[in-house]
Amino acid sequence: MTYRSPVSDILFSLKAVAGLPELIAGKLDGDFDWDTLASVISEAGRFATEEIAPLNRTADTVGAAYENGAVTTPPGFADAYRRWAEAGWGGVSAPAEFGGMGLPHLVNVACTEIWNGASMAFALCPLLTEGAIGALKTYGARELLDRYLEPMIAGRWTGTMNLTEPQAGSDLNAVRTRAERADDGAYRLFGQKIFITYGEHDMAENIVHLVLARLPGAPAGTRGLSLFLAPKFLVDADGTLGARNDVRCGSIEHKLGIHGSPTCVMIFGENEGAKAWLVGEENRGLAAMFVMMNAARLAVGTQGVAIAERAYQQALEYARERRQGRSGKGGDGMAPIIEHPDVQRMLMTMKGYVHAARGICHLTAAALDLASHGRTEEERTEAANRAALLTPIAKAFSTDLGDEAASLGVQVHGGMGFIEQTGAAQHMRDSRIAAIYEGANGIHGIDLALRKLPLAGGATVRNQINWIYDVARAVSESGGGAFGATAGRLSEAAEALDGATREMQKWLASDSESALAGASSYLRLFGLTLGAACLAKAGLAGEALAADGDASELPRVALARFYAEKLLPVAPGLARSIVSGAAPLSAYEAVLADAI
Amino acid sequence: MTYRSPVSDILFSLKAVAGLPELIAGKLDGDFDWDTLASVISEAGRFATEEIAPLNRTADTVGAAYENGAVTTPPGFADAYRRWAEAGWGGVSAPAEFGGMGLPHLVNVACTEIWNGASMAFALCPLLTEGAIGALKTYGARELLDRYLEPMIAGRWTGTMNLTEPQAGSDLNAVRTRAERADDGAYRLFGQKIFITYGEHDMAENIVHLVLARLPGAPAGTRGLSLFLAPKFLVDADGTLGARNDVRCGSIEHKLGIHGSPTCVMIFGENEGAKAWLVGEENRGLAAMFVMMNAARLAVGTQGVAIAERAYQQALEYARERRQGRSGKGGDGMAPIIEHPDVQRMLMTMKGYVHAARGICHLTAAALDLASHGRTEEERTEAANRAALLTPIAKAFSTDLGDEAASLGVQVHGGMGFIEQTGAAQHMRDSRIAAIYEGANGIHGIDLALRKLPLAGGATVRNQINWIYDVARAVSESGGGAFGATAGRLSEAAEALDGATREMQKWLASDSESALAGASSYLRLFGLTLGAACLAKAGLAGEALAADGDASELPRVALARFYAEKLLPVAPGLARSIVSGAAPLSAYEAVLADAI
Repeated sequence: MTYRSPVSDILFSLKAVAGLPELIAGKLDGDFDWDTLASVISEAGRFATEEIAPLNRTADTVGAAYENGAVTTPPGFADAYRRWAEAGWGGVSAPAEFGGMGLPHLVNVACTEIWNGASMAFALCPLLTEGAIGALKTYGARELLDRYLEPMIAGRWTGTMNLTEPQAGSDLNAVRTRAERADDGAYRLFGQKIFITYGEHDMAENIVHLVLARLPGAPAGTRGLSLFLAPKFLVDADGTLGARNDVRCGSIEHKLGIHGSPTCVMIFGENEGAKAWLVGEENRGLAAMFVMMNAARLAVGTQGVAIAERAYQQALEYARERRQGRSGKGGDGMAPIIEHPDVQRMLMTMKGYVHAARGICHLTAAALDLASHGRTEEERTEAANRAALLTPIAKAFSTDLGDEAASLGVQVHGGMGFIEQTGAAQHMRDSRIAAIYEGANGIHGIDLALRKLPLAGGATVRNQINWIYDVARAVSESGGGAFGATAGRLSEAAEALDGATREMQKWLASDSESALAGASSYLRLFGLTLGAACLAKAGLAGEALAADGDASELPRVALARFYAEKLLPVAPGLARSIVSGAAPLSAYEAVLADAI
Repeated sequence: MTYRSPVSDILFSLKAVAGLPELIAGKLDGDFDWDTLASVISEAGRFATEEIAPLNRTADTVGAAYENGAVTTPPGFADAYRRWAEAGWGGVSAPAEFGGMGLPHLVNVACTEIWNGASMAFALCPLLTEGAIGALKTYGARELLDRYLEPMIAGRWTGTMNLTEPQAGSDLNAVRTRAERADDGAYRLFGQKIFITYGEHDMAENIVHLVLARLPGAPAGTRGLSLFLAPKFLVDADGTLGARNDVRCGSIEHKLGIHGSPTCVMIFGENEGAKAWLVGEENRGLAAMFVMMNAARLAVGTQGVAIAERAYQQALEYARERRQGRSGKGGDGMAPIIEHPDVQRMLMTMKGYVHAARGICHLTAAALDLASHGRTEEERTEAANRAALLTPIAKAFSTDLGDEAASLGVQVHGGMGFIEQTGAAQHMRDSRIAAIYEGANGIHGIDLALRKLPLAGGATVRNQINWIYDVARAVSESGGGAFGATAGRLSEAAEALDGATREMQKWLASDSESALAGASSYLRLFGLTLGAACLAKAGLAGEALAADGDASELPRVALARFYAEKLLPVAPGLARSIVSGAAPLSAYEAVLADAI
């Protein structure tokens, strides 16, 4: 199939949903200009469409290969990565001081979607590098920044996150990798990490590992974790590469999807110990790691959007070409299957999912931009809280929708969808990891419920719900007839979310088991409703353009209506399910007592 | 993992949900005895657990292999199949006249679940053979029956269904394979069929292909299709195998899942034509094929149940062993993840899905039994209509739940779920075909809406909805407090289904586009609600047993409650989405106009 980066849709969402032009015109410090930003995104789209997307099928069939500690990436990856880096794409969001472009988060999230839509397996390498740059930039000593940041931003070196160990997945309390202070002022690392994305590969000159480890005598639990930087090749003071460090890749995993992305077992300190430098303070590693993880969470949510878009494009192309049965339109021959209402339903659902999740990711990035560059302290704090609230929704809701869209994509293809050569199944396999890594989605539900609802005494979530009510009111007051029942459905969903939120907040003080039992459904309800509001906002923008004589964006109204009338009506039922609390789970031991 | 066939759960559902003991005691002709039937099912469970289930992982990693027209099945399949056939398992539902056991459909559906839970790739071979036996038995001339049925029922020969061609998937109007009358009274077939399950393999002495083809001068469309029998090896009058027929396997597909099951391209008539015999009358092939397809549809629904059960068992085992984080129960070390409410939610959802879908498949089989063996014509007709109504729900709802449960199973495993060695991903890959083959699920929605709702002037669907109301009333009147809000949620869901049904029936006369637009959601609503009623019925039976002093089945009440309070509350929202009709799809051309 022919995949094209959805540049115009992304630009429309940045304008109509996230309000980027207003942000750069008035609210963000910095000298940005919409046309320049738009041309950066368009050029990213061109590069991804032409240079990366064609590699994605082979990346799946050939995959990454391991031999004697070395990892060979799929055909074309190393070349494409070199050109990608040379074009400066590693520096979109990085500070200009170290060679980056220093562009807003909104532009970065747009590019992240573009790379991942072209090839999720390819894009994971820059995704991890970006996270490592973020953590270093925030917590690294000047000396580390000077030595590592420029080549990482230039894409000559890549970065990794080393958290997980066999006994420590989502629970970092259990991390055992140990660090020892050495006479030379550096440290030595000993331990094994698993699930390390691009822990070893042949695409860059050096690999910079950020590693969570424990110093001797450190407190138990996460408060005894420190973050270290351990490069694959040691770096001299002048930046030239020296000896190989005592870290190697022991094997790579055989996975359901993203075959092109090597998932490595990394072994630190088989001999004298992996030479490493502290990032930030001792025993404060978790804070630094959270900088990486938060950025990565939004990026992973964006992967959900990207894969849903790619699956949608492929299904749409198939549905236009494949002929089966007769449609209601009459005619003699077989009709393209897109003329069958159930196929329309699947494609519209996929498209609705893409645009809803994209809108939520854009809202999150807009909040991050305001949090960094807002004009007042109050504005920045409020925006930081909003970003914190939205991040788990952007991550978990978008990746769930990515899975659902990719599965619908298979279904649209019928029997051909199950055949690997078709490529639809690859999207489903690739997509499936996104709901798991960077915190399994259930953990983001808990994060939303326990840590984000109380932000600013509840004002953060209240403001976000009010924003949804405002969109519903705007549709009701100024939306045209093509919106159908959008305003009504959106108000009802907002009320359902409102009620569920109050119940959850009550439980936080008195009945945390009920809050935990409802957390995943609550996140779903929030995402579903917020996504509908994003679509409605885009629809209103389409109508406003039409009033000015440009009707090209009017179909966004119909998409908002479809979503509101066909997908959103389950919102009150989700709220009802949430408010039933933990009682329906209370007998779980008896219900799950035996496997038979 | 250790998989065990869920024999006791299956027996409980046959009793409590489908009422098999009452059926054999009073309503079915035939000399059946519950203890004998139960021991058949138990023995099937033992065989599947010990002999088939251990082959399932290797079947996935090694897969079926093709070379020069021959197909090698995975290690152990041929041996296990021989033992399976020798034990008589090919004859569970087959007529005693030809060596079968002639047991009720309910016993057969139980066994079908058992084989598929052990290995879906393995069980597909008998599943197709059973369909071929059914079509032959119903439509085949005596001479064909005498020559073919006994070895097929004995499992020495297997059967296939040859419908699909590259241009004819769900739409059989487009079938092009042609048949010619030959001087010897037989026919010759020429054409190519695709997606032929077990079209070629090394597990049996002969393969009996049932093939849809067109005779010269036959009418266009499906009314010009005839059904033929074409064996791999020609069969002499005394039953001995003769020359190889002019049919061969051209290749097998590389698929997302069920790697152990060869999916063949079959080429008929490269030389003198594949020698074939007519099954039924000329140009009446579709009716015969529907006999196979209807049986296969219930069997495929049962695959959904089976794979959900297997995924559930594996996730449960992992959740008990894997330790991460602390639970609300306190304690020092890490808790098994089953103590986390969100993991309980996932496991309870999986178990609820298994039992709901199993109940629906059992209700369908009970209707088939009454349709075949009811005492009165009226009873048989009513039951046949009920079976016709329930079959699309059993097929599509169960297979959708199979996918959802398998995906939840991956999620419970966290990162390990994405690693192929874990095996959780295999269930997700295997499961995915079931919503596609034997009619993609969207087609079953259409079948339910357009062809099944009008049955008996609407009385069939009305009776089924009344059955749900009756269960809700029984819970309300005699259920204990452990049912929580089950009665209320179930009544509301039944009302939602009732309302949506009336709207759909109205549309059938006036607005078929709206009926088509809502068909998939309507099927989902029906399945969700009917499944809740099945669980509630099982819960009531558990309470009745407890009143007699046996409390072992009481947890079924808590499962019914969980499903009713946590999963069922979206029912009114689904109904609301359905009644919005086709209007939200009307602008689909504009919305889907470009891929960008």
